[in-house]
Amino acid sequence: MEQKQKLLVAKIGGNIIEDKDALDSFLNDFAKVKGHKILIHGGGKSATKLASKLGVKTEMIDGRRITSSENLDIVVMTYAGLLNKTIVSGLQKYQCNSLGLTGADANVIVADKRPAQFVDYGYVGDVTNVNSKTIKGFLELGITPVFCAVTHDANGQLFNTNADTIASEIASAMGVSYDVSLFYCFELKGVLENIEDKDSVIEHIDLEKYTKLRDAEAISDGMLPKLKNCFDALHKNVSKVHIANADFIKDNTIKHTILSL
Amino acid sequence: MEQKQKLLVAKIGGNIIEDKDALDSFLNDFAKVKGHKILIHGGGKSATKLASKLGVKTEMIDGRRITSSENLDIVVMTYAGLLNKTIVSGLQKYQCNSLGLTGADANVIVADKRPAQFVDYGYVGDVTNVNSKTIKGFLELGITPVFCAVTHDANGQLFNTNADTIASEIASAMGVSYDVSLFYCFELKGVLENIEDKDSVIEHIDLEKYTKLRDAEAISDGMLPKLKNCFDALHKNVSKVHIANADFIKDNTIKHTILSL
Repeated sequence: MEQKQKLLVAKIGGNIIEDKDALDSFLNDFAKVKGHKILIHGGGKSATKLASKLGVKTEMIDGRRITSSENLDIVVMTYAGLLNKTIVSGLQKYQCNSLGLTGADANVIVADKRPAQFVDYGYVGDVTNVNSKTIKGFLELGITPVFCAVTHDANGQLFNTNADTIASEIASAMGVSYDVSLFYCFELKGVLENIEDKDSVIEHIDLEKYTKLRDAEAISDGMLPKLKNCFDALHKNVSKVHIANADFIKDNTIKHTILSL
Repeated sequence: MEQKQKLLVAKIGGNIIEDKDALDSFLNDFAKVKGHKILIHGGGKSATKLASKLGVKTEMIDGRRITSSENLDIVVMTYAGLLNKTIVSGLQKYQCNSLGLTGADANVIVADKRPAQFVDYGYVGDVTNVNSKTIKGFLELGITPVFCAVTHDANGQLFNTNADTIASEIASAMGVSYDVSLFYCFELKGVLENIEDKDSVIEHIDLEKYTKLRDAEAISDGMLPKLKNCFDALHKNVSKVHIANADFIKDNTIKHTILSL
């Protein structure tokens, strides 16, 4: 069997994006990574700031944004506009030939509107298809795709979709053709045993450990859906998932959390 | 000599973009156009509206936006975010596989900051290079590029660039490989002999007629730079330029203005 090419799928969140110098430094490091790579970014804090400036109410339930039509416009302006293009132009500066994408662009990520059950999340989409062939086409042209957290229904409606989930879905879809490493980059060093102790990194979490931690309610609310996304990817074609500080991109020997089945 | 493939380069302005139904109808018609095509869109009115909501001053000189850092963020949010993604998702609805682009994406349009001479336009870029090879690559993948009026300097700086100019520059660059028709679509029927009479369309303007009209100050201020863009393209690889109402996209027999050398 032919050996698969390596592909790095990295997701960065608000804390890096909000800090101009930290972002520039990360993009410089990311640009230096050899081989195929994909970047996914969030930007919730910026969207909330813009909403506040525009006098539009932001409502969150369990860390998820209730996305009214007005909020969707703000999300699209912030994620697909300002943040995505800041990141793309920032990568071009370091000779990384990047291409900013929402799910609507080249129809790469299709989603269904999340049904209103206990909560009506509004214009929030759950991913139903990642067009891995098109993404592979971009990679083979030497292009680094940069995804923001916006998808579409292929019928004219854009959606807000969680960036961690998009990273997991892309990693799984690309995992059919590539040997994918999925890297969730954030401000801490990894998943912490004790949230008060920033050094208490759990270095390895397998399915058993994850189940134990979850059942013991030992994982913070914000981390739980992230871990779920990690294991979703591990169950579908992804060999390794890392939760680490952004510095991991330039030094993969630093202490962090590795997840596996 | 091998015959060149046809390529339509169409530019739409604010009056269509601002009107949801008119935009949907245009996108439906545009999606039906067979063969290779590229869409370029403006969006100045939407940017001005957002600036006003955010309490940011909009200053125009000769119809050009003075682009402060704050204005640039607004331009990027509006053009590259909301408008570009609304258009891309709207085209996907009609099975036109479109891809939204700024000049930074895949490094397709590089610009220099306009030097501050009589007027300091701020973050306004003058196009120095269109990467026609990459655009051709997208077209050959069956993708319809959709450009907004944002470029970059390849060194991390985004710019506001006039959409008419971008259309002209793209048409010229692609004209080396394709038989390009450039179509400026707007709310009137064409260039008018008499601005009071909406039916007084000048059906053909060649270089001689253009010079006469210009010197007699018979052309409205808004139309002059548009005509200059048209003739720039005609001087560089573009065979035909049309200034017409949006309906021209579905009926190319309607009365409009054709420009040639």
